[in-house]
Amino acid sequence: MQQRPELSIGDPAERIETPALILDLDVFEANLHAMAEFARMRGMRLRPHAKTHKCAEIAKRQMAVGAVGICCQKVGEAAALVEGGVGDVLVTNEVLAPERLARLVRLTDRANIGICLDSDLGLDRLNAAAQNAQRRIDTYVELEVGANRCGLVEISDAVALAEKIHGTAALRFAGLQAYQGAAQHLRMRAERKAAIDHAAARAAAFVAALNARGISVPVVTGAGTGTFPLEASSGVYNEIQPGSYVFMDRDYGDNQADPESPAFRHSLFVLASVMSRREDFAVIDAGLKAHSVDSGYPAISGRPDLVFDTPSDEHGIIRGPRQALPALEQRLRLVPGHCDPTVNLYDWIIAIRADKVAAIWPVDARGALN
Amino acid sequence: MQQRPELSIGDPAERIETPALILDLDVFEANLHAMAEFARMRGMRLRPHAKTHKCAEIAKRQMAVGAVGICCQKVGEAAALVEGGVGDVLVTNEVLAPERLARLVRLTDRANIGICLDSDLGLDRLNAAAQNAQRRIDTYVELEVGANRCGLVEISDAVALAEKIHGTAALRFAGLQAYQGAAQHLRMRAERKAAIDHAAARAAAFVAALNARGISVPVVTGAGTGTFPLEASSGVYNEIQPGSYVFMDRDYGDNQADPESPAFRHSLFVLASVMSRREDFAVIDAGLKAHSVDSGYPAISGRPDLVFDTPSDEHGIIRGPRQALPALEQRLRLVPGHCDPTVNLYDWIIAIRADKVAAIWPVDARGALN
Repeated sequence: MQQRPELSIGDPAERIETPALILDLDVFEANLHAMAEFARMRGMRLRPHAKTHKCAEIAKRQMAVGAVGICCQKVGEAAALVEGGVGDVLVTNEVLAPERLARLVRLTDRANIGICLDSDLGLDRLNAAAQNAQRRIDTYVELEVGANRCGLVEISDAVALAEKIHGTAALRFAGLQAYQGAAQHLRMRAERKAAIDHAAARAAAFVAALNARGISVPVVTGAGTGTFPLEASSGVYNEIQPGSYVFMDRDYGDNQADPESPAFRHSLFVLASVMSRREDFAVIDAGLKAHSVDSGYPAISGRPDLVFDTPSDEHGIIRGPRQALPALEQRLRLVPGHCDPTVNLYDWIIAIRADKVAAIWPVDARGALN
Repeated sequence: MQQRPELSIGDPAERIETPALILDLDVFEANLHAMAEFARMRGMRLRPHAKTHKCAEIAKRQMAVGAVGICCQKVGEAAALVEGGVGDVLVTNEVLAPERLARLVRLTDRANIGICLDSDLGLDRLNAAAQNAQRRIDTYVELEVGANRCGLVEISDAVALAEKIHGTAALRFAGLQAYQGAAQHLRMRAERKAAIDHAAARAAAFVAALNARGISVPVVTGAGTGTFPLEASSGVYNEIQPGSYVFMDRDYGDNQADPESPAFRHSLFVLASVMSRREDFAVIDAGLKAHSVDSGYPAISGRPDLVFDTPSDEHGIIRGPRQALPALEQRLRLVPGHCDPTVNLYDWIIAIRADKVAAIWPVDARGALN
């Protein structure tokens, strides 16, 4: 792990060495409160996804403004955040390895813990882990709702799995995981609407089939930053899991806005410096190890005249009109193409307010892949 | 930093939790020795690039078989490897920040240290740092040789900078950095040959111009895994900087082979497991946080019938003939598209021999961006 940056609270932002992951605290707080207010107004449980930030400090701030808990994608991620004081975590993923399930179940000593299932093998393994530890754990069935990833395809299979969970002593059937990840970056709101209509119809069919068997579905959970107003309007979902809204990366910014969504703004940046200059381009010190390019290149905050191009491991090229190119040592704020894997490159987030260092938070679950 | 994996030397490889970064130690050692032998036979200094592995253990093994030192891309990377016992590091990059140069100069207490320049500002800053610390530091001029990144374009400017370095008391003019990064993945050997012919001609012109001024150029350094036989045959370069050869990622594997190069094989893998199954695809537990996709998707080792597709943060989709798709919990070895940023996601490399854990090495410089 990289050492904590040698900065004091109140230091001018220009003292931050680049590249660095910085957070505009005012914008972050506005995003934080806007989502909390949305959930409150719409009567939705809010369970933000912490795979975005992997940071206990941010998770606790999300819960302080009303989130019922957070989501994680990995058991190790959940463990790091529980260690950091987070009291309610849903692992929105399937886990099969017995030793890993044993670790997950042990977390119930300190937090409410939930997990998803989409197979009988997963059920058997989770049930054994819970029985061994004499713990009861919240268990969600994951349904395929259009993302083409995990989740059961046949609603009858999902219903059967829920009935089995319901029939065990060690597992508590807590609800339905119905996340449509593939809908999040459909650019047009109408495309996203069609995708979530389909997801909601499948979720509703599952709920109806279980209700007909006398089993209630306490929580129907899903949604991301690209679609949550649609799930909130569906009449089926009662919990939303957006993650990226706290940071708003370039890829989400490229979506056609949903009029029902608060206007989240970019709060997270990779701060970079010009390290070499040519007549027709500038070279900055932020390349493939400073931000993830899986969802396209970063935008340059406040500089629509400049474009990022041709990254290598530790360099990026900045192009634009010659007279507008930044000089040696000039700093730029890159808006990451995809915030989640970008944050996962850093051990520290440096929060800024009024051009001063306001806080330095560890990325507690960085690299937690297991 | 993630905890050291709970494994003992000699444990069966199936005990490794996935995803994990694993190293086939036999293949790694064959790659290590093949490059050392190439350099020895051709009378070239070998200075492997450690941005690939960021691991002091690997750097020391490279030096034990004949490398004169290693390259790093960042001061923090150099610091971590010197801390790990590496005694000779060239930072193949430009650094302007005075506090960072001060840190670099301090490393000369424990190691031979070199660095590159491509500006008068860089020269002034480095000279001041060396004078302040009363240290002498090896200084290389970087020349643009076709990569269109850092380095001076005009040979006359590069010569003038070398003369200035030569005229300072605190800086030792050590040579020329002439790395053609853009040539490394030109697929056809003839394309790479044309690119390196151009680079070598520029390097030769620089050397001739300096020699005419009575200044010798001790080292002409450059080359990567895609082109080093060409630099070695150029008559100009006397040092090569390949990095990826120890691991051989998918992108390098896709190059048309150079008959003069040893046949390096893939030694580095992301070990992944199937966590969810559909009729027509399998979902594995290795996504964008387990390997970098900047240079394309990973190949599946030993399974040319399977393809990797549609990664999300923590998932990847495996497609192939239905009857050949791996079952739940089956393990696959992914050959990363690009090894350098993939290694940078992990805190540990698990070395395997004969299906047993043979060593666990820290990625000492993971996340060293400054």
